[in-house]
Amino acid sequence: MSQSISTSAPSSQATATAGVAGKKVKESLQFNLKTPKGTKDWADKDMIIREAIFNKLTSLFKSHGGVTIDTPVFELREILAGKYGEDSKLIYNLEDQGGELTSLRYDLTVPFARYVAMNGISNIKRYHIAKVYRRDQPAMTKGRMREFYQCDFDIAGSYDSMVPDAEIMNILVSGLTGLGIRDFKIKLNHRKILDGIFQVCGVKEEDVRKVSSAVDKLDKSPWDTVKKEMCEEKNQPEDVADRIGEYVKINGTLRDVLARLSSDPTLMANESAKQGIDEITTMADYVEAFEVDHYISFDMSLARGLDYYTGVIYEAVTSQSAPPKDAAEKKARAKKSKKDDEDASEYVGVGSIAAGGRYDGLVGMFLGTNSKGKKAPSIPCVGVSFGVERLFSLIKQRAELADKIRASSTQVYVMAFGGGEGWNGFLKERMAIAAKLWKAGIECEYLYKAKANPRKQFEAAEKSGCPLAVILGREEYPQGQVRVKVLGTGNEKDDGELVSIGDLVEVVKQRLDDQKHDGMDDVTRLLAGL
Amino acid sequence: MSQSISTSAPSSQATATAGVAGKKVKESLQFNLKTPKGTKDWADKDMIIREAIFNKLTSLFKSHGGVTIDTPVFELREILAGKYGEDSKLIYNLEDQGGELTSLRYDLTVPFARYVAMNGISNIKRYHIAKVYRRDQPAMTKGRMREFYQCDFDIAGSYDSMVPDAEIMNILVSGLTGLGIRDFKIKLNHRKILDGIFQVCGVKEEDVRKVSSAVDKLDKSPWDTVKKEMCEEKNQPEDVADRIGEYVKINGTLRDVLARLSSDPTLMANESAKQGIDEITTMADYVEAFEVDHYISFDMSLARGLDYYTGVIYEAVTSQSAPPKDAAEKKARAKKSKKDDEDASEYVGVGSIAAGGRYDGLVGMFLGTNSKGKKAPSIPCVGVSFGVERLFSLIKQRAELADKIRASSTQVYVMAFGGGEGWNGFLKERMAIAAKLWKAGIECEYLYKAKANPRKQFEAAEKSGCPLAVILGREEYPQGQVRVKVLGTGNEKDDGELVSIGDLVEVVKQRLDDQKHDGMDDVTRLLAGL
Repeated sequence: MSQSISTSAPSSQATATAGVAGKKVKESLQFNLKTPKGTKDWADKDMIIREAIFNKLTSLFKSHGGVTIDTPVFELREILAGKYGEDSKLIYNLEDQGGELTSLRYDLTVPFARYVAMNGISNIKRYHIAKVYRRDQPAMTKGRMREFYQCDFDIAGSYDSMVPDAEIMNILVSGLTGLGIRDFKIKLNHRKILDGIFQVCGVKEEDVRKVSSAVDKLDKSPWDTVKKEMCEEKNQPEDVADRIGEYVKINGTLRDVLARLSSDPTLMANESAKQGIDEITTMADYVEAFEVDHYISFDMSLARGLDYYTGVIYEAVTSQSAPPKDAAEKKARAKKSKKDDEDASEYVGVGSIAAGGRYDGLVGMFLGTNSKGKKAPSIPCVGVSFGVERLFSLIKQRAELADKIRASSTQVYVMAFGGGEGWNGFLKERMAIAAKLWKAGIECEYLYKAKANPRKQFEAAEKSGCPLAVILGREEYPQGQVRVKVLGTGNEKDDGELVSIGDLVEVVKQRLDDQKHDGMDDVTRLLAGL
Repeated sequence: MSQSISTSAPSSQATATAGVAGKKVKESLQFNLKTPKGTKDWADKDMIIREAIFNKLTSLFKSHGGVTIDTPVFELREILAGKYGEDSKLIYNLEDQGGELTSLRYDLTVPFARYVAMNGISNIKRYHIAKVYRRDQPAMTKGRMREFYQCDFDIAGSYDSMVPDAEIMNILVSGLTGLGIRDFKIKLNHRKILDGIFQVCGVKEEDVRKVSSAVDKLDKSPWDTVKKEMCEEKNQPEDVADRIGEYVKINGTLRDVLARLSSDPTLMANESAKQGIDEITTMADYVEAFEVDHYISFDMSLARGLDYYTGVIYEAVTSQSAPPKDAAEKKARAKKSKKDDEDASEYVGVGSIAAGGRYDGLVGMFLGTNSKGKKAPSIPCVGVSFGVERLFSLIKQRAELADKIRASSTQVYVMAFGGGEGWNGFLKERMAIAAKLWKAGIECEYLYKAKANPRKQFEAAEKSGCPLAVILGREEYPQGQVRVKVLGTGNEKDDGELVSIGDLVEVVKQRLDDQKHDGMDDVTRLLAGL
């Protein structure tokens, strides 16, 4: 239950009436009191948990030398054009109101590349935590929304091979373990190896992307289904599909899979595949130095949807990323019931919780040509994006601790006790004491009533969750004294400690310190999964 | 200069070419490499300063028991309709792409009221720091953008008169003084007093809002101009305008103006005016208890544009809020030169730096009727909005300190020194040491090169701004020892302190503590205006 919010009526989907008073209800303008489809309000302790996730990731990004940028929520439409392939249809456009044509950003990567190109930046480590927009079919329980947060860290610049890529792996692992997520693995592959495999299997150059997108479905569908799609929809001969099938079922540790691929003379004779294998060999050394190699599963079936990847690709999954056992059944039921806003595909698990890859050509798409008509070289980039909503769902499941979290952070409830003739409730006196505490950086509240009885004030204090009360007594206060009482002890006979107003700040700070037994608050504990 | 960003070319407004390679430049698709009109990227130390402002205000809001909410960046269009009067034309609409009609939020107040109504909340103290959107004429130097941040704190609920209003005054003052802004005053007025004045001066009920919007221009224009607008554009008789003129020139301390108004029998006979005067009398007591009364100027000329205010209204201004002395001249020059994107009105000063008021009817606009057709009572609200971009401009002017601020926060640069036969650059060793430091929560970096000479590494360390270096020597490291060197001392002969790797984390933490002489970092100092 909320600490600082009182609810008078449960009317979250109420249809309200906005109209001229006196008109009949049915005739007045009806409107839906809701947020747009695929969006939601965040409030209360959910906000506390989400902000704690942001803070945790922000300090991780900063500890790797990251700086942050903030780009506009909409971009010129031509900036986004031609970057997302088929998914471009999911872009939200702003209305043409007699100016530039603009669209809401679809991700943070393209705006980042635009920023790097526009400012002629040759190297930067940047992080960006912000909302992105996709006109997708929402699936709330799966954490798929039309407005959602991305949490990106990217390294742009020309460096020695795989050095930044390995650091991104380190960040990915630290980010997830730092959020108390332990049962995850990072599926890793390389676009150049995949391209090589398709080539040696006999896929034509122009078919590579569509075959790749079929392979990308292997996390949700069995090989037979994918093969069928390759042969029937993507027009590949069956023997080509079968050869691909042999390769994409390969997965294991980096060293094991590297050994297997390196001993394949056909593959090693392919220039693209060889280059990819060499790069992963270099990377294996580095992720071992970082001691994060045991999280990585080298998986030939990982293809990733986005067009712009050019090198290593990866995605982190947990046991909850996979569809639940009864997914098929639920899916069928959902399809049958045709419930509004319910999407059958939401029963396929939460999907990846973080993902990314190397994209060396994207910045170059924004770079102009010099006076001789020669195109400026692109800036190579590699990065990772954490799926905040999905991480939030996993963390929120640590239910017992989540229940303990307070939405507000006030520490002291200021009250006045008195009564009898001429008693005015000491409102101004409570205000003066509150102002004193605020100035000392102590979070406090008091009841917004001129006069209130002790019971009302204790109830409000309990609702606020404050650990301490400062009590102004009708006789004591004029003599320069107030009481400091520890709340929630159940000891109603305890009148609290009498202290002089001059010592109040010091005593309150001391009592608050006493309360924090081990220096770790509930949110920290929740994130750490303790 | 940026610490973590390297710029290779100054091409911030370059026109780039996106086209098929081989085609001639002129024929290829040209596009503007820029952000949409009225928007900008935030980066580098500007982000550090802006985030410090957010953090400062956030902890202030929390210390008053505030909880935060996050609403979608767009709302159903019907939610925003009829809330902003004439300014509705500045609302950004999203394209109708076959779903609901939606618009970008224009402020945070209407989404807050929608949230309160939708969730049946009877009381809440909430803060919200987020971007809002207005299709206004941008004036960059004045800090007027089409996409900008608002930083709002609001108290919703039925409480004893003026108690929350006075607390908002306290928050307004603490917010500004906490950001090192001292030369400000809060202009305060009351909609009910204004309405009363208009009534006793003979303004017809239906003309009140338009006369009020003329009065609102008194901060930018002299009385003669405003009077002219009233008589000529708003069709008021001259004697009505003259009577208004007498009232609106009244300003002074709360107590002085209250005394003057209370001694005006005509005004006190007006019900609306009397109610407003009684409320301000109550408030005067409370702001004195908070010791913030000396910041307040009770100013009859303050009217505020928005329709939804129903009680006390206020706006904080600094000396820089007013137009500069040469404004008229600059304005004329701007009009003459007709420079693109240059707005003559930008020479009128930065305007108010924070503003707000009481709005008791807004939530009610979203509330439905019960089964008997009776409308649910509204939830009274009062709040304040800080103008972050304007505050940022004022703080950024504290130039010397702003220069010192680093965009990145890395503390240690990890280097390797060696050379000669078989020297491999110790890249994996640097990675292992970096991983050790990161695990201990110490921010560090190293050069993304397999082999690099000491000069290159020192240059990179200097550019990063790290105060410490950890140096891996070719002979020392295999014996379990590294060097810790304080950077920026100018002492090139200092080889640093030799420590065993087991003690490294402890020694680094100690040296970093030594560097922080007085526990106050540059950003804190900048905000405090020291």
